Amino acid sequence: MIKGINHIGYEAVAGTGPSFRAFNPTIGEFFGEEFFSASEEQIGKAAELAGEAFHIYKNISPEKRAEFLEAIADAILDLGDSLLERAHQESGLPLARLTGERGRTVNQLRMFADILREGSWVEAVVDTAMPDRQPLPRPDIRKMLLPIGPVAVFGASNFPLAFSTAGGDTASSLAAGNPVIVKVHPGHPGTNELVASAILSAARKTGMPNGVFSSIIGNRIETGVQLVKHPCVTAVGFTGSYQGGMSLIKTAAERPVPIPVFAEMGSINPVVVLPGIIERETEMIAGQLAASVTLGVGQFCTNPGLIFIMEGGKSEDFISILMEKMAATPHGTMLNQNVCQSYYQKRDELATKTDIATVLQGENLAGTGQGTSALYRIEGSRFISDDGLQAEVFGPSTLVVVCRGQKELMEAIRHCHGQLTGTVMGISEELEQFRDCIAALQEKVGRLIFNGVPTGVEVCHAMIHGGPFPASGNSQYTSVGADAIKRFVRPVCFQDCPEALLPNELKDANPKGIFRKVDGVWGRH
Amino acid sequence: MIKGINHIGYEAVAGTGPSFRAFNPTIGEFFGEEFFSASEEQIGKAAELAGEAFHIYKNISPEKRAEFLEAIADAILDLGDSLLERAHQESGLPLARLTGERGRTVNQLRMFADILREGSWVEAVVDTAMPDRQPLPRPDIRKMLLPIGPVAVFGASNFPLAFSTAGGDTASSLAAGNPVIVKVHPGHPGTNELVASAILSAARKTGMPNGVFSSIIGNRIETGVQLVKHPCVTAVGFTGSYQGGMSLIKTAAERPVPIPVFAEMGSINPVVVLPGIIERETEMIAGQLAASVTLGVGQFCTNPGLIFIMEGGKSEDFISILMEKMAATPHGTMLNQNVCQSYYQKRDELATKTDIATVLQGENLAGTGQGTSALYRIEGSRFISDDGLQAEVFGPSTLVVVCRGQKELMEAIRHCHGQLTGTVMGISEELEQFRDCIAALQEKVGRLIFNGVPTGVEVCHAMIHGGPFPASGNSQYTSVGADAIKRFVRPVCFQDCPEALLPNELKDANPKGIFRKVDGVWGRH
Repeated sequence: MIKGINHIGYEAVAGTGPSFRAFNPTIGEFFGEEFFSASEEQIGKAAELAGEAFHIYKNISPEKRAEFLEAIADAILDLGDSLLERAHQESGLPLARLTGERGRTVNQLRMFADILREGSWVEAVVDTAMPDRQPLPRPDIRKMLLPIGPVAVFGASNFPLAFSTAGGDTASSLAAGNPVIVKVHPGHPGTNELVASAILSAARKTGMPNGVFSSIIGNRIETGVQLVKHPCVTAVGFTGSYQGGMSLIKTAAERPVPIPVFAEMGSINPVVVLPGIIERETEMIAGQLAASVTLGVGQFCTNPGLIFIMEGGKSEDFISILMEKMAATPHGTMLNQNVCQSYYQKRDELATKTDIATVLQGENLAGTGQGTSALYRIEGSRFISDDGLQAEVFGPSTLVVVCRGQKELMEAIRHCHGQLTGTVMGISEELEQFRDCIAALQEKVGRLIFNGVPTGVEVCHAMIHGGPFPASGNSQYTSVGADAIKRFVRPVCFQDCPEALLPNELKDANPKGIFRKVDGVWGRH
Repeated sequence: MIKGINHIGYEAVAGTGPSFRAFNPTIGEFFGEEFFSASEEQIGKAAELAGEAFHIYKNISPEKRAEFLEAIADAILDLGDSLLERAHQESGLPLARLTGERGRTVNQLRMFADILREGSWVEAVVDTAMPDRQPLPRPDIRKMLLPIGPVAVFGASNFPLAFSTAGGDTASSLAAGNPVIVKVHPGHPGTNELVASAILSAARKTGMPNGVFSSIIGNRIETGVQLVKHPCVTAVGFTGSYQGGMSLIKTAAERPVPIPVFAEMGSINPVVVLPGIIERETEMIAGQLAASVTLGVGQFCTNPGLIFIMEGGKSEDFISILMEKMAATPHGTMLNQNVCQSYYQKRDELATKTDIATVLQGENLAGTGQGTSALYRIEGSRFISDDGLQAEVFGPSTLVVVCRGQKELMEAIRHCHGQLTGTVMGISEELEQFRDCIAALQEKVGRLIFNGVPTGVEVCHAMIHGGPFPASGNSQYTSVGADAIKRFVRPVCFQDCPEALLPNELKDANPKGIFRKVDGVWGRH
């Protein structure tokens, strides 16, 4: 039973701001219940509670924090089918996909629990004292990563579970030792309410302080801005559009005390398909790319929106087969009306650019909220001369850039904006021959893929889901995988600190047995 | 023989912008030679060369980069006394201090060479493929830190060697694989010219690409702004004033492609002296603090500008002895006229604040460029009510805040802005009793010191020289110590990359034998 409420710490509070309703894109109807936005005062209350909770929560042992994360995972699973059904109704995403996404959400909570128990993630470094050093003694210096403070999390429209209320930002922030305030995504507020209740029941069960988690309702920009401006908030996690991310980055930078915003803002994910593999595997490569472009109605930040090929050989066959396979893909329900309308508008803008050729453009089904595929092509020399061709078209659309020779391909790659991913498809000899192009592509991306597709982001230790601007607001961090925790910590060093006051990770005996660097030497010592 | 020239890659170029002369603060006279500022076009040339050099330099092996760093260290030592003498003439810093600073500069270049050879700093993580995983196979994913691109470095007035042309920013950036463009500090342009020549001779000797290092002259804000705005510049290292740092941060944020600015902007470094140690060691503590406040005429970013004590006991004796010892410290030559005038102006502003009492205020010797000591006091309740009391007074001045009880001390600490360092002095039982205050202080600082003084920043593996805003523009990084290299890299992951194309650090065989995380397990495997 969805109540449309905010969670301010452990208290369920009806918002005193304007209300809105959730929307079911599959049937094109609004839900019955109203969600009342939190007022500025209510947002302030949540932020202050988070600030107070931080002083307690940061001292809770990694083991206890791990139990909290695992309890959240269990509580989410306990929600059963009602969670999947609500998420399906609010997002139009198929139940099978949402079942997988729930697994991913639960697994990443458990992964961070494992990381906390293992303990080496804190990057502990110990430099022991040298009291007899000349001309001055060396003090004892020890450093580790410590939590940064309360984190504001903005959920994503396209991942109502894995990038939202209990998604990667929340999991990594709580793991690091920071309270979280989620700004609910207006696309799936009911899903949020279910997940927020699960988080809070896990918090109660494992004895976490009031304020360790809050969730704030709002469908206007003001709600997010008020949250980011609050002095108790010390960092922001965001996944969404370039406009949304930049607005938060600007707000955060203009605070009296600026704070970091880790914004993952989308990407067009160039794929370079080299001539040899097109020659050898025309059908297979075209099929892989058609599937990747249309997967989930193209609503992934890793969707391949740009495909570079070389003129000649079987390139025209490749484009034809790609077109046929995309045309054969059934249209699908898009996440919401805004996403759907924006998709058709952006692909129309692309289609009318100078020298763009439309290879395929499915019917505009914005009226029914359905997304149809689109395929465009342009010459490499034209691509280089128009930055506007790199605007993200969020949906099942892609642009093939046909390059005249390796030099033009190199220029086109160099001309690309920052990206989450870049992909190279080629046979072995080609990968060697195009080494410079691959190196240039690497400079543009957070993840470089060989002979695969960019969709599908593995949650693992080595994943980097981030990249140079504008893919991300900060190329030095990832929002997926084990290292996502590093966004919400900062290093602190202790000089000549008495053993009794040192965190366990820095004590002489290394009681947790973590990997550390001691006097310049790495080891479990 | 100083020529007043820019170094644009390997080319020595006379600037076509306005000229200025260096100043000798000890004798109060300008030097003879003129330094001609680089024009916007010349700055652009240096940045473009750096951009081209990056594509080559990033692929130069860590071993070769280490040799380059060591060659710089040797070339600096080869400059001999002429370097020390010029630095002394331009900064007024004593030769003994500059000899130590040169040692530090050379040692940190060699430290980064060692770090490159050891190799584990790249944070390599390998997740091997699981082709049989259900429902989907897991790809092979491997990540490591890679260089970010050309770095603009702004030298500091108070460390003409260790935080300037070949200082920590340059050393860590070159170590990471990034070309460097130094914006010369107008306080010591002759010192820069000598060191820049040493860097370039080392670059030539070790076969580094043209553009791996440039040095640009300018004494106006425009020079730095033009450099930071250039599209080929990808990150900025800065040590200096709050105003200077914030201006670069703003410039960098407003670029079409924003870039990170690692700005170390100063700090007042609170010291909490607990009553028990004042009781037991009144004279010793007062002596230590007087020495730390007046060291180097107070011109350190770690200078203790704020001392918290508790009312009662021997607190008045402590203040008296502190005053006597500070008064007995001879005045000294300050770095330059700006620093000196600003010192007297800022301490005068502090002295006229409501409820401030002047305990000691040496004569204003701005006319001769000399700095004299000053000591002020205020009550804890007043400190909390006026943010203006936390403005940095760069020079041998400090403010004692007398707190009425532990609660007021706690509030005063909570009220502090972000700091590079925080210090606690106390006997063992006190450290336990004031645990909450120490925890609150830790939240404010990058380095927490026990029973020592904040001046003296050890260059070691565990050092963190950074801290929450406004001490630093980014609390997640350090500008001193081994981890300074992490400012100028970003993580990149490789998915299903053929072994032959992988960087050595990520190859199956781990040919460098570095510490890595493989399938979640840390080790030298």
